[in-house]
Amino acid sequence: MTNPTFRRKHKIRFSECDPAGIVFFPQYFVLFNDLIESWVDELLPDGYHGVICTQRVGMPTVHLETDFKAISKMGDEVWLALDVERLGQKSLTLSWACTGVDGVVRMAARQTIVTTSLDTHQSIAIPDGLRTAIERSAMAARNS
Amino acid sequence: MTNPTFRRKHKIRFSECDPAGIVFFPQYFVLFNDLIESWVDELLPDGYHGVICTQRVGMPTVHLETDFKAISKMGDEVWLALDVERLGQKSLTLSWACTGVDGVVRMAARQTIVTTSLDTHQSIAIPDGLRTAIERSAMAARNS
Amino acid sequence: MTNPTFRRKHKIRFSECDPAGIVFFPQYFVLFNDLIESWVDELLPDGYHGVICTQRVGMPTVHLETDFKAISKMGDEVWLALDVERLGQKSLTLSWACTGVDGVVRMAARQTIVTTSLDTHQSIAIPDGLRTAIERSAMAARNS
Amino acid sequence: MTNPTFRRKHKIRFSECDPAGIVFFPQYFVLFNDLIESWVDELLPDGYHGVICTQRVGMPTVHLETDFKAISKMGDEVWLALDVERLGQKSLTLSWACTGVDGVVRMAARQTIVTTSLDTHQSIAIPDGLRTAIERSAMAARNS
Repeated sequence: MTNPTFRRKHKIRFSECDPAGIVFFPQYFVLFNDLIESWVDELLPDGYHGVICTQRVGMPTVHLETDFKAISKMGDEVWLALDVERLGQKSLTLSWACTGVDGVVRMAARQTIVTTSLDTHQSIAIPDGLRTAIERSAMAARNS
Repeated sequence: MTNPTFRRKHKIRFSECDPAGIVFFPQYFVLFNDLIESWVDELLPDGYHGVICTQRVGMPTVHLETDFKAISKMGDEVWLALDVERLGQKSLTLSWACTGVDGVVRMAARQTIVTTSLDTHQSIAIPDGLRTAIERSAMAARNS
Repeated sequence: MTNPTFRRKHKIRFSECDPAGIVFFPQYFVLFNDLIESWVDELLPDGYHGVICTQRVGMPTVHLETDFKAISKMGDEVWLALDVERLGQKSLTLSWACTGVDGVVRMAARQTIVTTSLDTHQSIAIPDGLRTAIERSAMAARNS
Repeated sequence: MTNPTFRRKHKIRFSECDPAGIVFFPQYFVLFNDLIESWVDELLPDGYHGVICTQRVGMPTVHLETDFKAISKMGDEVWLALDVERLGQKSLTLSWACTGVDGVVRMAARQTIVTTSLDTHQSIAIPDGLRTAIERSAMAARNS
């Protein structure tokens, strides 16, 4: 069994929960967007904001499939993890999981992201620096 | 062609957009959660808050598939629509679409919701009042 | 007694509430940001998005004072209202209130907004079209 | 000069920024709500969720004053800090600041919180365990 490409621990916050006392499901997508941002921040010297603000390359989601398997309550410690499933010319597919520290999967997803020009919102090739860094990151995880 | 079971017009807000100037995708899920709430508010005298707060019945999402097909920018007028695909004993499947007033689909999704006890977070049968109202609502749309 | 400059009815949503079952206070600021946007949309042909996206004028908040006086629960019907307290060269001060349909004030605030260039983030004069429209809107309310 | 009672470093996220590319101001209040939660998590064995979920004690905000002095952009590293200004019988006043790693204050606030019963939403005395821990935390900072 291999390690995920990137992961971090997170404690479920009051601000992420709904009147039912559990994570409001759209908040999971915010958490994973932040996770991807942290990952790219580790991959590139100028980080995710360099991609968005300097290179003016967007990374919108085009497809997303999610299974919610168990609830997460305020105060729960969880792992948020991501893996690279596929790295194409103009898109990549990530898989994510939110897992309790007890190992129980609370939520798992598959997300396809495209790279776009923020000036035209048209799809463009993944910038070379980002592509190389993602390849290296995914390979390092596979070999760990 | 039939009408959707429920829809409302929405103008994309500043607060829903990201630094790329387009809807931050998790915000779509907030918009559709609000849409479902508005729909249930029309179906039942005590509304969605009656289901959650009085009956203490939760409606968490267990599966969600989404395609993002075109961007929505701040100020765009869109239709948010939902249909009932399947009404089971303890779960229902909705399909959603966000469509520009020009008829172009920006985003479409299929969501499976279960009904749970908010005391135990275990799945329970859809309450009779809610079930009957959903059946009537879906049928009215089909016959419109 | 005069009418507020702008107001709209709002039903408190599940998505706006916290695990205590009441409005999560930062959500009030989202609601009032949306209210200001709806107001400017009525004032100008190109709306708030015209100010932000076309004119590239930002409207950041520089000062905010808020009193939270009574709670708002999911499903509550409230009025969100705003008034123009002061219209300066490069800034304006608004007062807001969230009031139950029973007339009880839940939350009141005073907000100072400046107009900025979105290219430099430096303060600039309020654009003439916006200024004239705000003056007319405030006067109409006072005379109503 | 003393250290703040509690602080942590934070990198401004894409999800926290608006179409102007800077922090959407309501997000600051989410960040500081999370900061208070992290602080209480350090003070008490059962943490903030123990206060809310087990003791059923709410900590709503009753007054908030904020000055926004400089913008924060996506990718900026900031310090989020809080201090205890006043600890009363049924309420406490905190001061917050968001400061760039360059020492420039971006935003400062004063917040008054009351403790309430989550069953009645009436104000109650600050629970003894929480009061003692806050006193100890504020004193330790003053003496550091």
